[in-house]
Amino acid sequence: MSTTFKPLADRVLIEAAPAEQVTASGIIIPDTAKEKPLKGKVIAVGVGKKDEPMTLKVNDTVIYGQYSGTEIKIDGNDYLIMKEGDIYGIIG
Amino acid sequence: MSTTFKPLADRVLIEAAPAEQVTASGIIIPDTAKEKPLKGKVIAVGVGKKDEPMTLKVNDTVIYGQYSGTEIKIDGNDYLIMKEGDIYGIIG
Amino acid sequence: MSTTFKPLADRVLIEAAPAEQVTASGIIIPDTAKEKPLKGKVIAVGVGKKDEPMTLKVNDTVIYGQYSGTEIKIDGNDYLIMKEGDIYGIIG
Amino acid sequence: MSTTFKPLADRVLIEAAPAEQVTASGIIIPDTAKEKPLKGKVIAVGVGKKDEPMTLKVNDTVIYGQYSGTEIKIDGNDYLIMKEGDIYGIIG
Amino acid sequence: MSTTFKPLADRVLIEAAPAEQVTASGIIIPDTAKEKPLKGKVIAVGVGKKDEPMTLKVNDTVIYGQYSGTEIKIDGNDYLIMKEGDIYGIIG
Amino acid sequence: MSTTFKPLADRVLIEAAPAEQVTASGIIIPDTAKEKPLKGKVIAVGVGKKDEPMTLKVNDTVIYGQYSGTEIKIDGNDYLIMKEGDIYGIIG
Amino acid sequence: MSTTFKPLADRVLIEAAPAEQVTASGIIIPDTAKEKPLKGKVIAVGVGKKDEPMTLKVNDTVIYGQYSGTEIKIDGNDYLIMKEGDIYGIIG
Repeated sequence: MSTTFKPLADRVLIEAAPAEQVTASGIIIPDTAKEKPLKGKVIAVGVGKKDEPMTLKVNDTVIYGQYSGTEIKIDGNDYLIMKEGDIYGIIG
Repeated sequence: MSTTFKPLADRVLIEAAPAEQVTASGIIIPDTAKEKPLKGKVIAVGVGKKDEPMTLKVNDTVIYGQYSGTEIKIDGNDYLIMKEGDIYGIIG
Repeated sequence: MSTTFKPLADRVLIEAAPAEQVTASGIIIPDTAKEKPLKGKVIAVGVGKKDEPMTLKVNDTVIYGQYSGTEIKIDGNDYLIMKEGDIYGIIG
Repeated sequence: MSTTFKPLADRVLIEAAPAEQVTASGIIIPDTAKEKPLKGKVIAVGVGKKDEPMTLKVNDTVIYGQYSGTEIKIDGNDYLIMKEGDIYGIIG
Repeated sequence: MSTTFKPLADRVLIEAAPAEQVTASGIIIPDTAKEKPLKGKVIAVGVGKKDEPMTLKVNDTVIYGQYSGTEIKIDGNDYLIMKEGDIYGIIG
Repeated sequence: MSTTFKPLADRVLIEAAPAEQVTASGIIIPDTAKEKPLKGKVIAVGVGKKDEPMTLKVNDTVIYGQYSGTEIKIDGNDYLIMKEGDIYGIIG
Repeated sequence: MSTTFKPLADRVLIEAAPAEQVTASGIIIPDTAKEKPLKGKVIAVGVGKKDEPMTLKVNDTVIYGQYSGTEIKIDGNDYLIMKEGDIYGIIG
């Protein structure tokens, strides 16, 4: 994106994976799950909070909760802003 | 503004961007968002809390949550007072 | 006032500005604000809490939330007692 | 009082001032106040909590919130037990 | 009691004073009190929590809140188990 | 039991005493108690949390609250898993 | 699984044991339990939080609460992501 966005503190900017790509990657969200985990890519990472450096890096593929984060559109694309603590883990 | 306002602790004074300018800058707020993020400019910054220096600087363009902050009018202009922790990130 | 009042810990004693004086000073409270910020003068300041010195000084003009503090009358005048953390900032 | 009472930790024992004495001392409680601050005299003081020494001393005249503390009768007199943090300030 | 009971952490074992003994000792519980403070004797004391040694000693006569602690019967006698922080003070 | 169970952090594994054994040991649970304290034996103890070593040892007889812990069956026997902080004290 | 998953912070990835295997291993969940503890195997472990290293290791057999964690499917298999603090203990 031409507009840069720098998350504050322990926040990360996430680009959600499209629904079909989720299945292809080996992650299938069960229909019965109370909260569906979702997959996305890390686009930008804050500098962390005092004495708490960030673990995530740009381009990490992550799983996060269905209700995590706030939607935002930058240069016509949809992203999510959330805290690193809302992210379950990294897919390799 | 001729009246100066110095935020206390970890608060910042924000001048919200007008609605039309938001679209022009590449940030479009999705209609379906539960909470719409908004764009604004940092006008004044507090000195931070003990052992927690501020990250934001005057003139930073920031994104913050729709329900963040308290409205205030100074010299006839509208501003918002909020804590730095309520701000999602900086647009460059 | 002839009766002295020394706030405990991180509390301050505030004398609210009369409603008309608020307008004259360049601060106008918007009618649509969910919580109206108010203006007042610092009359007395506590010594702060452990490792948290006070920022405010006597005679500072401050902005605080509409529902902050507790009303008290001393020598026939109305004051508010509140914590420094409830005060948004200082007007210069 | 012949029975001594030693408050534990950060508690203080307060003897509430009678209602008429409140007016005479220059403190008038506004009828419109949501919570009426009250005046009293410090009778006994705890030793404080770890790393938090007490500010109040016996015989201090203090202002505290209407709903603060627990009523107790010792040797036929009414007192209140409350934490120092519930006390707004000292009148001199 | 023949069965020994050692309270864990910051707990104390209290033997409540009988209702008539309360009056004789100079402590009268006001009928109008929202929560009636009660009197009792310390029977056993825990070792405290990390960096928080206990203030109470066995045989201290204490005042505590009406709803504090958990009832227990040991060797046919009624006791209360509560945390030291629930005790208002010591009567001398 | 042949299956070993190692509680994590500050948890302990408790074998509840049968109801009749409770009476014999001198502990009688009052019928009027809002929450009945129960008696049990410590079967296994966690290593504690950071800087908070455990006080309980295997074979300690303890009193705990009626609603504390989670039921579990190991090798056909009933146990309770709870945190040490939920245990009132040790009977000797 | 061919897809690797690295839990963030103090999270672990758990593969729940099938219901019949639970009985065979000597752990029987009582029908009357308010919350049924469940058995599973640790598949992946985060690096822990600041100053709080992890206790669990891959292949540990653990017991956790019925409502702990979030369901996720990786490469067609069901897993749970939860925090180490939600796990009761290790079965040996």
